[in-house]
Amino acid sequence: MLKVIAEDFIKPEFVDVVLPLYRELIAATKKEPLCIAYDLYRDEKDPGHFIFIEEWPDRAALDAHCASEHFTRLVPLIDQYARKAAQYILMDGRVKLER
Amino acid sequence: MLKVIAEDFIKPEFVDVVLPLYRELIAATKKEPLCIAYDLYRDEKDPGHFIFIEEWPDRAALDAHCASEHFTRLVPLIDQYARKAAQYILMDGRVKLER
Repeated sequence: MLKVIAEDFIKPEFVDVVLPLYRELIAATKKEPLCIAYDLYRDEKDPGHFIFIEEWPDRAALDAHCASEHFTRLVPLIDQYARKAAQYILMDGRVKLER
Repeated sequence: MLKVIAEDFIKPEFVDVVLPLYRELIAATKKEPLCIAYDLYRDEKDPGHFIFIEEWPDRAALDAHCASEHFTRLVPLIDQYARKAAQYILMDGRVKLER
């Protein structure tokens, strides 16, 4: 299992421009057969700070997502309005309660 | 609904020391009646970078968690082994697909 946090930093004046792009990206991604979770949140202190929390079965599924038509079309449109580069954390599994 | 990402940065040589403390913290927190989700992940590129992905009904529930016996006892023990300060993102709701 692969968990992903992807953070976008959008110029505040363009938040209303990117929201429909994000909604299209989320709707298309949730239809990908290998997508387990793909939800977008907003930092309560910074309305231009968008945080995806994602779950994929493995790295190949994430790579297929990043190569999809909707990703390669919509992400560059969103990135036009970024105030700084996106940040990513890839996490390779949950810490289990048993040792 | 309140989503939280809490990131800890532990000195790599103390990862095995903090893991049992994290496991105790997770087990006790999951028993809190208001805890919706409280899962801990590790950055695949940095074994000392621990990331909690949490969900609480509201800020009051998060505050109660931070005031709990297990939190106030275990978090300072974990923080002894930090290489830099923890980081937090509080998110006040998922971006909905409908406008």
